[in-house]
Amino acid sequence: MIQAYAAFEPKGELNPFEYDPGALAPNDVEINVEYCGICHSDLSVLDSDWGKTAYPMVPGHEVVGTIGQVGDQVQGVEVGDYVGLGWHAGYCDHCALCDSGDHNLCQQSQATIIGRHGGFADKVRAAANSVVKLPNGLDPKSAGPLFCGGITVFNPLVQYAVRPTAKVGVIGIGGLGHMALQFLNAWGCEVTAFTSSESKRDELNRIGAHHILNSRDPSALKQAARRFDLIISTVNVSLDWNAYLGTLAPRGRLHFVGAALEPLNVGVMNLMFTQLSVSASPIGSPATIRQMLDFANLHDIRPIIETYKFDQVNDAIARLRSGEARYRVVLER
Amino acid sequence: MIQAYAAFEPKGELNPFEYDPGALAPNDVEINVEYCGICHSDLSVLDSDWGKTAYPMVPGHEVVGTIGQVGDQVQGVEVGDYVGLGWHAGYCDHCALCDSGDHNLCQQSQATIIGRHGGFADKVRAAANSVVKLPNGLDPKSAGPLFCGGITVFNPLVQYAVRPTAKVGVIGIGGLGHMALQFLNAWGCEVTAFTSSESKRDELNRIGAHHILNSRDPSALKQAARRFDLIISTVNVSLDWNAYLGTLAPRGRLHFVGAALEPLNVGVMNLMFTQLSVSASPIGSPATIRQMLDFANLHDIRPIIETYKFDQVNDAIARLRSGEARYRVVLER
Repeated sequence: MIQAYAAFEPKGELNPFEYDPGALAPNDVEINVEYCGICHSDLSVLDSDWGKTAYPMVPGHEVVGTIGQVGDQVQGVEVGDYVGLGWHAGYCDHCALCDSGDHNLCQQSQATIIGRHGGFADKVRAAANSVVKLPNGLDPKSAGPLFCGGITVFNPLVQYAVRPTAKVGVIGIGGLGHMALQFLNAWGCEVTAFTSSESKRDELNRIGAHHILNSRDPSALKQAARRFDLIISTVNVSLDWNAYLGTLAPRGRLHFVGAALEPLNVGVMNLMFTQLSVSASPIGSPATIRQMLDFANLHDIRPIIETYKFDQVNDAIARLRSGEARYRVVLER
Repeated sequence: MIQAYAAFEPKGELNPFEYDPGALAPNDVEINVEYCGICHSDLSVLDSDWGKTAYPMVPGHEVVGTIGQVGDQVQGVEVGDYVGLGWHAGYCDHCALCDSGDHNLCQQSQATIIGRHGGFADKVRAAANSVVKLPNGLDPKSAGPLFCGGITVFNPLVQYAVRPTAKVGVIGIGGLGHMALQFLNAWGCEVTAFTSSESKRDELNRIGAHHILNSRDPSALKQAARRFDLIISTVNVSLDWNAYLGTLAPRGRLHFVGAALEPLNVGVMNLMFTQLSVSASPIGSPATIRQMLDFANLHDIRPIIETYKFDQVNDAIARLRSGEARYRVVLER
């Protein structure tokens, strides 16, 4: 039996929940959960914001722990290995995208917390090829957020072959954004944080931003005209995107990793004369997660976390909902 | 003196207009105009659609002719050379973009028909580095439209390094679209024409489309779900762009070369799960025009044109305005 914490209704409090996972499938592993980050998409599913959630619902898809059991057919990971598990807990493994290593774009991929039970638990199961071993030396306590928030902001750098000479802006410096600043700084880029929180200024410089722009000051955007090769937006609110397009250099890209729900209202002519792109992407493939972990380990990049014990899960969720967490909330034993 | 045809007010009839171009600047050339295509952007400027046009206004930016005079400092072209002149008649030649060969994105570039007089004339002047020599063997009569319409649809193939294995759709099969079909077919791509004109079906197959989709049939778009790696839109009207996004394969791109004036209203979530991009671009650099001309020459790609004599210019413009031209209108002596 697995001892988990589940919500039983939309926005409901989490309570202990025990379930029987059945026999271990041949290609699955069972992880003994040591840490689990909390991501905004845990809240979105918990709150049934993205269509109808099935309850009881066990959140948690930024898992770090050790392999407790492996299925008969599993290769590449062994009992005792330190691994992480992120948004996806399985892939079809036979489509053109999986064949190309783009598992994160597989249409049959399974989300760790949708139609399955997640990592707010003593154990969690997943397909072996959806978990990635932690490289030696990586701090397991803070590694969980890399597996969803981290890969989400790291993946565009790989997908678009961002050059170290690029000037990059990050909109929204929370769980995702503070990791983006670190990755981009280590990537060699000139890094600008767009933030409405002046109180974060010194801290953001320490984290990796070379420049801070007050996103609530329209003149700041005007002064930054044609500056950025890439802007990564981590927010899920609607901003004046055409004004941000004005801060992009020719061939620049405004890239969304935050799930903004309102249409973008972008003007074609605002894109055309400087050949701009607007795009979005979801998390990343296991191969890219591997690259990210090695890169984070080499450059001592680690999520800045606040920790709560697993049995304080409701406090932890309240903290995340407050918007005050700096910068990611992680559950620990 | 230069003998031209000019409009004297928005949407006005063109009438003979003589002007003195002054001494030839050291880096300029004078072209004896033999042919000149008519582009929708000639109409936009003629009609003062893009902000205030100065009159008298001489249209014409798809020029083919021979060099009649060269300035003192001109190198690389000589009197008698067959050349073409497109949207741009000059660049700053010292910005980062010009330095990189991206003259078409230069902020100080000069449009051939804005603040200057265009090619509806016996002669037209331009900076020497904005004209490109015609390769031996290229038909001069039909080459003019390559210099604006042609390069506009060819440039994205170069900019985004489109692979010959790509499946590409073209929205709007007029002046630009019919050249896009030819380029894409020769590029090796699987080519689909989106058209609302069933009567063009057989002709579009001959021109280069492997498939025809009726863009007014919503079920056609649904059946094409996740099919295209690239869609090039040449239209300037507003369509249901989110429906077109649904026809893009993972990592696909919806690219605008038509100057649609209404905002795009694109949903971030419609981009995210398959990592799509939306983008736009203007014409192309002289270096890319050179590549295009060689490619067109090798593959016998030529604009399909209807010709009018220069003194029938008002009839020619009326024909373009009718939307019935197949596919580009060209003035000849």
